[in-house]
Amino acid sequence: MVIIQKSAALFEEKIANYLKEQSSPQSLYIPMEYMIQIGGKRLRPAVLMATSYYYNTHLLESSVDAALAVEVFHNFTLIHDDIMDAASLRRGNPTAHMKYGIDSAILTGDVMLIKCYDLLMRYPPDVALPLVKVFNKMAIELCEGQRLDMDFEKRFDVSIYEYIEMITFKTSVLLGASMQMGAIIASASEEEERAIYEFGKNIGIAFQIQDDILDIYGEEAEVGKRKAGDIIQNKKTYLYLKALELAEGVQKEYLTDVYMTSSLSLEEEVIKIDKVTKIFDSLVVREYANQLKDAYRDLALSHLVNAGFGNEGIEEFKLFADYLLNRTV
Amino acid sequence: MVIIQKSAALFEEKIANYLKEQSSPQSLYIPMEYMIQIGGKRLRPAVLMATSYYYNTHLLESSVDAALAVEVFHNFTLIHDDIMDAASLRRGNPTAHMKYGIDSAILTGDVMLIKCYDLLMRYPPDVALPLVKVFNKMAIELCEGQRLDMDFEKRFDVSIYEYIEMITFKTSVLLGASMQMGAIIASASEEEERAIYEFGKNIGIAFQIQDDILDIYGEEAEVGKRKAGDIIQNKKTYLYLKALELAEGVQKEYLTDVYMTSSLSLEEEVIKIDKVTKIFDSLVVREYANQLKDAYRDLALSHLVNAGFGNEGIEEFKLFADYLLNRTV
Repeated sequence: MVIIQKSAALFEEKIANYLKEQSSPQSLYIPMEYMIQIGGKRLRPAVLMATSYYYNTHLLESSVDAALAVEVFHNFTLIHDDIMDAASLRRGNPTAHMKYGIDSAILTGDVMLIKCYDLLMRYPPDVALPLVKVFNKMAIELCEGQRLDMDFEKRFDVSIYEYIEMITFKTSVLLGASMQMGAIIASASEEEERAIYEFGKNIGIAFQIQDDILDIYGEEAEVGKRKAGDIIQNKKTYLYLKALELAEGVQKEYLTDVYMTSSLSLEEEVIKIDKVTKIFDSLVVREYANQLKDAYRDLALSHLVNAGFGNEGIEEFKLFADYLLNRTV
Repeated sequence: MVIIQKSAALFEEKIANYLKEQSSPQSLYIPMEYMIQIGGKRLRPAVLMATSYYYNTHLLESSVDAALAVEVFHNFTLIHDDIMDAASLRRGNPTAHMKYGIDSAILTGDVMLIKCYDLLMRYPPDVALPLVKVFNKMAIELCEGQRLDMDFEKRFDVSIYEYIEMITFKTSVLLGASMQMGAIIASASEEEERAIYEFGKNIGIAFQIQDDILDIYGEEAEVGKRKAGDIIQNKKTYLYLKALELAEGVQKEYLTDVYMTSSLSLEEEVIKIDKVTKIFDSLVVREYANQLKDAYRDLALSHLVNAGFGNEGIEEFKLFADYLLNRTV
């Protein structure tokens, strides 16, 4: 992952400069700086830049503005999603709305979204227009995915198919679009654009399935947010939906009843997590989830070979997939 | 105002169709439909369309997409601003977040903002790019203006100059940019673009000063929101800042003390409004506000004559200015 790491390091410099440029009124831009500076691995911008590079090694620098747009956008969604999810921790730190208040978090998120377009408009017209189109489609899908996620919390009849559609929109298209934007900057062909988008998207789906697993089976310090938050919030994750599919009779009823409880005390929450995890374990849903994750990884790799990279590029993105999908679990 | 009225009527049809196109997930698009359908006079889109028309009478239909973008954007800002202002009424109806909850209002607002760019991208590249640039600049300024407005609530030393800058960003640039976008679609010259932008912007400033007057001296039913909300929220309006400038000694201290109170009971709010209004009346700040409003109207009209319209166009927009600035007061 030499180029991805190099991209991430270069990007870190560039985004620090970018944040310095955003000045007045300070109260508008401080929550943006805070959110971006508390970390994140810069995966999306780094992979966007590396994509441009592997099509044309001269394009690492010129992909920076699109990489900035993608990272600013990602952080905008985190700020607004954290309000909607009533999350208090993000990457081990207070969420933006906990630190600056909901009003500030809403408004700063809004201006961040607009700044993304500002960044994309820095490219010449023949690049800016396709970039904005890909970005727009992705951004709309992301809102739709977030909406489905919220709707699913109140529904009893979510199918695994619907779940995959939701996570595709909510989290995976951003990785796919980031790579496609890298391809656009490098004037890749339409087929190549499509292949690299599909690679990124399917790796993103695998990543999200892994994220669902980590939420329950990962370590809180490493995940950087509260453990088993999905269970507390009645999130329809793959683990839950698979358990519901496998459970029968009394166990199914019991699982449904336990899962749908809400407004619990801290003590009751611990009991709920314990009960649900025991059922998950007895039905080995963690194993099913790992298998599905692997299936999406394989699908992603099958697209990678059609993206028009040489061996080095293919090797780099394979390593990236491994890196992403073998996080602590 | 024949063409503006005709534009508003045509626009009403077009936006109804547009709303029907937005389908799934319904829960994402219903708050948008609600907000847009509870009314508003469609001033910005109608004036955008009329601007295109007076440069080139063939362009009424082709200006519709930009007009949709401007109206969707305007409603996005209303939805998010109503959350930040904790407003419960808008155009005499419950605000979006009161009706659908804060989370839904945030998310639907976000997707509305993205949809604006989607609409602008429907134009050919040589029109779409300048449209997005003008739109972006305006949208960023609008967020900055909203931020200043929120900051001013907690500050004691806001100058009248800062106030004018704030309302310019928060409310006036949108009218200016709408007209400039109409000019871009009609391939007007840069000088014409600038002149019509300045006309719209300065009319917008006059309109906002009038809005401050109406907040206190208008009728609640006509204004469609709670009377004297600015006083309750300690808003630094022109009326307040002018009163502060004119008041001396004890009266100045008294005004500052009364104005800065917050978290009041309903009864205390009524007393606060009464006290503040009495001071305003004794200092005739309403008269000063009307004079300032007239000064900005005159400035606007001085730009109108440089926008490159024929007599008919000039006449139409003069009538528009009169219409806008002689609302009930």
